[in-house]
Amino acid sequence: MTYRNRKVLITGGLGFIGSNLAIRLAEEGARVTLVDSRVLGCGGNLYNIEPVRDHVRVVEVDIGEPEKFLDEIRSSDVIFNLAGEISHLHSQRYPERDLAINTLSQLRFLMSCREHAPGVRIVYAGTRQIYGVPEYLPVDESHPVNPVDFNGVHKYAATMYHLMLTRAGELDAVVLRLTNVYGPRMALDVPCQGFLSTFFRKAASGHALEVFGDGRQLRDPVYVGDVVEAMRIAGGATRLPSRAYNVGGPAGLTLYEIAAILSRQSGLEPPALRPFPEERKAIDIGSYYTDSTRIAQELRWRAAVHFEEGARRTLDYYAGNLSSYLNAQDTDPPCKLGHNGQKRRMVLSTVDAAR
Amino acid sequence: MTYRNRKVLITGGLGFIGSNLAIRLAEEGARVTLVDSRVLGCGGNLYNIEPVRDHVRVVEVDIGEPEKFLDEIRSSDVIFNLAGEISHLHSQRYPERDLAINTLSQLRFLMSCREHAPGVRIVYAGTRQIYGVPEYLPVDESHPVNPVDFNGVHKYAATMYHLMLTRAGELDAVVLRLTNVYGPRMALDVPCQGFLSTFFRKAASGHALEVFGDGRQLRDPVYVGDVVEAMRIAGGATRLPSRAYNVGGPAGLTLYEIAAILSRQSGLEPPALRPFPEERKAIDIGSYYTDSTRIAQELRWRAAVHFEEGARRTLDYYAGNLSSYLNAQDTDPPCKLGHNGQKRRMVLSTVDAAR
Repeated sequence: MTYRNRKVLITGGLGFIGSNLAIRLAEEGARVTLVDSRVLGCGGNLYNIEPVRDHVRVVEVDIGEPEKFLDEIRSSDVIFNLAGEISHLHSQRYPERDLAINTLSQLRFLMSCREHAPGVRIVYAGTRQIYGVPEYLPVDESHPVNPVDFNGVHKYAATMYHLMLTRAGELDAVVLRLTNVYGPRMALDVPCQGFLSTFFRKAASGHALEVFGDGRQLRDPVYVGDVVEAMRIAGGATRLPSRAYNVGGPAGLTLYEIAAILSRQSGLEPPALRPFPEERKAIDIGSYYTDSTRIAQELRWRAAVHFEEGARRTLDYYAGNLSSYLNAQDTDPPCKLGHNGQKRRMVLSTVDAAR
Repeated sequence: MTYRNRKVLITGGLGFIGSNLAIRLAEEGARVTLVDSRVLGCGGNLYNIEPVRDHVRVVEVDIGEPEKFLDEIRSSDVIFNLAGEISHLHSQRYPERDLAINTLSQLRFLMSCREHAPGVRIVYAGTRQIYGVPEYLPVDESHPVNPVDFNGVHKYAATMYHLMLTRAGELDAVVLRLTNVYGPRMALDVPCQGFLSTFFRKAASGHALEVFGDGRQLRDPVYVGDVVEAMRIAGGATRLPSRAYNVGGPAGLTLYEIAAILSRQSGLEPPALRPFPEERKAIDIGSYYTDSTRIAQELRWRAAVHFEEGARRTLDYYAGNLSSYLNAQDTDPPCKLGHNGQKRRMVLSTVDAAR
């Protein structure tokens, strides 16, 4: 399976994972269109696609306004649907904004796909966050859904849209539930984007790392190149025995081990342990690691890059590009949803019956 | 446990289940406030509370505008949260409207409860619809969530809000997942409200019944008096070992058997079998019946009224009140969401940053 000459649409295409996917597919000869709202706080960054800037098309629009890119929807062979807000703390502070971005916009986008590209393959970037505090480890796809924040609720609503419309035969979607992803082009300046973003920001800019709690919680970070490969496979698979796949890293590491590796690679002193801030404690889930057996067996994907190697590549990337990843998106409240410094919020508005 | 002198808030209180609950609690001496938007198509009917009209307070407002009934929220001892749209076909035709009613309004309401009545007991009326096509029978609370329509997605999002805020210690909510409920005061004039509504409308008005398909799909209809009792218990329980309970009827019956009982009780000819209309076929789930073991064991509730008996009581009720249940709500598209003949739709509106 090759993407050569295939028409590919990537929503959230200027974001961390979207841009890595775009670069990979463009280099492979795909005809790539990126849709991105460039909403502040969501990680979209034009600099991310620097290597393929002249080889991809960028449409700057919110996927909640699909009428503005219908031609792109109609002509797509495969859609990678990665648009969304992923900050857990943002979602807790501004849940209605999160509902608008992660659920309402997805609903509008999928309704349009259903109408204008019926049956199209869609790969949706889900999240392990929907599982909440693990009831057992490793977490497989049958684990109960118990989100600990609004972001998890809203991402799961969007997941259900994809799966429900696929069961109904109207779309051909598959959901990849990603664990913590890291690598070149991850946003370093979006507040509360996750511990890896914070760790890499500090390591890349020469500041000592801190770990909350005892640092013994396990995680299984997955390198973005591995995620891109999982998406490539899911987008091209002719046979999809399942519609939801967990995508985890190659090994469980403690938060302290992760911080220690980054500190060492950056020539920094060892990480310090600090008490949990209240707001973070409320949404902490303890240890988490993924059972990726299903995608290994059914789609023959396996994470290939170990954290030591992936971290080195990531730090190498930022060594040459750090200024493009600092202070571009650090806005809280993340209210600047529009393109002209305007706030956008979801409202129940009363419009007259003639419309 | 008694509700005597307790302050009770019932959202969707003019609806089918809400009004039966209101009557029961008012007769028990509770101080009952009903909140109801009287949105056309959602089943709110002032006539429903005729027996206790002078003993309950009615606030006519959408729960998505909680700032209009903050005093009622603040002073509640128990909240029964029954507001919502339950027509599956409406949700398929107007999914954004369904998202506004069943998810956005619930989000706003719960955020207000969290702020103004922290830790309050809330009993949320969930639905067995979230389980979708059963993977096994009877369906217990661990069954995967696979909604077949937008209504199921949006009701489940609201369910997740309740459970997530309860896990976080901010509310004290419990979800009852109701199977098909029937009884006095069910709306007979809301299009596509479910087969029981259609069956009772026809039986009560002397028209022969029709059953789609082969009529052998199982259901476990539950009498509204039993549901009211389950809600009373859940609202008053000092110990809630679980936060989600299935609530099913006393026995599985085929659709044909249900129709035959109603036909016989109404002196009509036996029901006829008809082919499935396409739109209904798409959201048909085959056989369904509930495993209510958990609520039986943990809260000592069991359905007491068998269908023969419940159907008789229901037909007796409509024999004297039928005109109040016909042609009041039959509007499609169900666009009249406002109170003055105005349409209301959810929009992403851009408001300036100063607001």
